[in-house]
Amino acid sequence: MGLSGAVMAKDSAPVVSTNVTEAEVLAAQQAWGNALVQISQDFEKGGFEKAKQTANAVLDAAYGYNMGPVLFKPTLTVAPQTFRTTKEGALAYFVGGDKNYASDTGFALKGWRKVDVKNVGIHLHGNTATSMGNVSITDKNGKVTTVDKTWGYVKDNAGNLRIVLHHSSLPYSPK
Amino acid sequence: MGLSGAVMAKDSAPVVSTNVTEAEVLAAQQAWGNALVQISQDFEKGGFEKAKQTANAVLDAAYGYNMGPVLFKPTLTVAPQTFRTTKEGALAYFVGGDKNYASDTGFALKGWRKVDVKNVGIHLHGNTATSMGNVSITDKNGKVTTVDKTWGYVKDNAGNLRIVLHHSSLPYSPK
Amino acid sequence: MGLSGAVMAKDSAPVVSTNVTEAEVLAAQQAWGNALVQISQDFEKGGFEKAKQTANAVLDAAYGYNMGPVLFKPTLTVAPQTFRTTKEGALAYFVGGDKNYASDTGFALKGWRKVDVKNVGIHLHGNTATSMGNVSITDKNGKVTTVDKTWGYVKDNAGNLRIVLHHSSLPYSPK
Amino acid sequence: MGLSGAVMAKDSAPVVSTNVTEAEVLAAQQAWGNALVQISQDFEKGGFEKAKQTANAVLDAAYGYNMGPVLFKPTLTVAPQTFRTTKEGALAYFVGGDKNYASDTGFALKGWRKVDVKNVGIHLHGNTATSMGNVSITDKNGKVTTVDKTWGYVKDNAGNLRIVLHHSSLPYSPK
Repeated sequence: MGLSGAVMAKDSAPVVSTNVTEAEVLAAQQAWGNALVQISQDFEKGGFEKAKQTANAVLDAAYGYNMGPVLFKPTLTVAPQTFRTTKEGALAYFVGGDKNYASDTGFALKGWRKVDVKNVGIHLHGNTATSMGNVSITDKNGKVTTVDKTWGYVKDNAGNLRIVLHHSSLPYSPK
Repeated sequence: MGLSGAVMAKDSAPVVSTNVTEAEVLAAQQAWGNALVQISQDFEKGGFEKAKQTANAVLDAAYGYNMGPVLFKPTLTVAPQTFRTTKEGALAYFVGGDKNYASDTGFALKGWRKVDVKNVGIHLHGNTATSMGNVSITDKNGKVTTVDKTWGYVKDNAGNLRIVLHHSSLPYSPK
Repeated sequence: MGLSGAVMAKDSAPVVSTNVTEAEVLAAQQAWGNALVQISQDFEKGGFEKAKQTANAVLDAAYGYNMGPVLFKPTLTVAPQTFRTTKEGALAYFVGGDKNYASDTGFALKGWRKVDVKNVGIHLHGNTATSMGNVSITDKNGKVTTVDKTWGYVKDNAGNLRIVLHHSSLPYSPK
Repeated sequence: MGLSGAVMAKDSAPVVSTNVTEAEVLAAQQAWGNALVQISQDFEKGGFEKAKQTANAVLDAAYGYNMGPVLFKPTLTVAPQTFRTTKEGALAYFVGGDKNYASDTGFALKGWRKVDVKNVGIHLHGNTATSMGNVSITDKNGKVTTVDKTWGYVKDNAGNLRIVLHHSSLPYSPK
């Protein structure tokens, strides 16, 4: 196991902190966007298996499925498979191709090129943090999709933020 | 200020805990449902002002607007007023009648009679907790509306859970 | 109840943090030292009742007895009253004059003039923090007493650090 | 990395908690006592190298030196080496034989047979906990030494409590 806390030498006393910082939240959000674009590009250049491999690695590195069920409500899932608390369910959502999740068509494979995050607020509570805001994703044709998104993070002993909560939804449209 | 931690006498040593328990989360969820029904009933019996008074009291007691901006994405809000990080915005959503939030019609006034919460998972991290799942609300005509809902709580020094994060969305409907 | 979290406007998104900072720990340590000197001075100028009143106010403001039993092992207490988990026990230690704590002679009344804190480390975990190091206190005759000291803090909803753990001991003297 | 949180199936929703429980604190205290006795016995049966190996393993498993400086004030250390914030300093205290810590004679090698912990209080704050009380250790001749002791713990991602704070002192003796 690596370092759990950042050690900062100030005055003469070292400070060990397990707290999440705003900068770490912003970096984790950017990493999520980069990963989504990467999966799309890997799909275009390397095909389904390559994309699936990347998505799998992203889930291992950036989500907290190793810590227990993740509270994940993806944008486009439908009942009775709305919530993807297992890694298998999350992987199916991102790349599809899983007969146990027949309605999934691979959200991450849709030619994404750019991800912009606009937070309305960030909460920092010890080794956890939450954020809420809009995330806008642009595809290869320049079409932008904006969703309402909540993320929750836990910092692990290696100092990495892991997504343990992710609620994404299309904006409400009055009929 | 009241007691911050529950003190339990076990063996000979008292235990002070500031941690949120599952039971406290379930109780807070039930209290939210009861409050929604109460506002509807107060509206029917006592009119708008009575309902607004109740909604105001609910926001003061059950939400964390006294702690800073709340990460609140109600079910039916639209841009540019999607997120209601202030108490004023939350109150407008629940009871309407605020010219600064002209699209709000008063979500809590729609004759709600029953609220059922079905969690898919609860996370406990110190004096904070999150939950995700479906919430089904039944109106006076027996019509049921089910939403996908995430709540985040912080326990205050008086031992009360306060909602500091609330993301609610209608289920995705493939076209 | 006041503000629980510091709100910092950065970029466009407000950040709410309930985490303790190193600066807050250092300020709380300095405040403890100032309070000790104040009690001594109040005793000299205003007598026992004045000193007791000040000590009482310090315990209310800077310790967490309102949150439950405080883990307090003062420097000079003896069994069976070594630990002062109640406010009454802490007050007796600081100013004496309590027949229930007959061995207490009023530690804070000994003419203290200066307090220096030299930390060997500070740990920050969410709304709690701990520190360890040497504390040197100088009396009116210039005599310096150095103790080994551990403090534990919890930040309350008003944003104040409260001492919930305090272990103080004279340096070990090999015979 | 293993499981970070205990997952408990209750009702239909799994609960993930990273919080420390009282039972975990009591178990960690007992494990500390057992480890002290083990080192003594390994010394008697296997000699210095065997004892040192065991002490090293105990420090790796039960202390948080892998997370940064540990706030450790052992019972019998003297200035300027009072505090043992590094693993090397802790190991020297327990088994001696380190020329960089010439005053250490190996506290854990003194024929310890039994350890009793009597807490005056335990505080639980998320994935951290603190305890204070008396620890009485009995040697092979039946002699009992009682110290005032504070422990602070952090639960790591594998679910193990690690000591990150340890302040031990002999009872104050009025002259």
